[in-house]
Amino acid sequence: MENSEAEIQKAISEISYGLYIVSSMSGKKMNGQLVNTVFQAASCPPLVAASINKSNLTHAYIEESGIFSISVLAQDTPMPFIGLFGFRTGREIDKFKDISFKLLAGCPAVTENALAVLAVKTVSTLDMGTHTLFLGEVLAAETLKEGPALTYEYYKAVKHGKTHKNATTFYAGADRPA
Amino acid sequence: MENSEAEIQKAISEISYGLYIVSSMSGKKMNGQLVNTVFQAASCPPLVAASINKSNLTHAYIEESGIFSISVLAQDTPMPFIGLFGFRTGREIDKFKDISFKLLAGCPAVTENALAVLAVKTVSTLDMGTHTLFLGEVLAAETLKEGPALTYEYYKAVKHGKTHKNATTFYAGADRPA
Repeated sequence: MENSEAEIQKAISEISYGLYIVSSMSGKKMNGQLVNTVFQAASCPPLVAASINKSNLTHAYIEESGIFSISVLAQDTPMPFIGLFGFRTGREIDKFKDISFKLLAGCPAVTENALAVLAVKTVSTLDMGTHTLFLGEVLAAETLKEGPALTYEYYKAVKHGKTHKNATTFYAGADRPA
Repeated sequence: MENSEAEIQKAISEISYGLYIVSSMSGKKMNGQLVNTVFQAASCPPLVAASINKSNLTHAYIEESGIFSISVLAQDTPMPFIGLFGFRTGREIDKFKDISFKLLAGCPAVTENALAVLAVKTVSTLDMGTHTLFLGEVLAAETLKEGPALTYEYYKAVKHGKTHKNATTFYAGADRPA
């Protein structure tokens, strides 16, 4: 049995994910970022969770405001749109300047290329080293259109997408950011 | 904007998942169960997490032993095999009696129908209401075969699979267990 770092990374890479934009705000400032780890944490009442890198601006905004939104991306989301939310920082640009969004329960939620949007109020957090898991109650939700959701597998295999260095799934040995 | 329970559940159902068997042990007794919420929590060192219903036997075994394994299921996993781990309880039957498994870092890991197996040592937990999130370090991992992973979407759409009442994603209004 081999247990090298590469062998562990290869096995971990078999885990399936969707792709989402998680957004939050600080006063009138808004920001959002690409996230692959979003999941329903409990069924009744419905709790959802999202994992965010501690060094990202969206992390600071969620800590400050206690709310965030989740936009479930459609499979046909264009790569430049993914690049805007996945590879740019809100510290340098206003990501919401030219895209469609709405306020859902008071929280900005990206509606462009989204199948559904959810607004979440944080109730608990878990320190996961490089990332924080934000667990929260769903305040409001809307389904915007029908169609297949974008998966991380599809993004990598069909769209030849890269992985940002701040992602949980980043592995320097296999996949360097553009 | 409608915010009925059904509207929230519809939006939540757009979240993507894989399907896994999470196994653990109590002395010489072994048990495992179907899980949809497994994710990489941090990149360096690699941490992974799994969400388990508090009322399940596997939950008690992980709490006792502090270790668990994850088997990433292949897309062609037969439905009776999924039924064994997803809809039967280890309190009544020995799920490991007739299936292939191995001991990985001392923890039983189902190898039948698995693309990869990981052994994990719990380092932290998060109470999520009906479920506990177990976060841990990867002790060992092996890739067993190549091929597409089974996703929850494929299980529901192509295999017409049901959702157990103890799953995070169970919603009585839409999907009753067999």
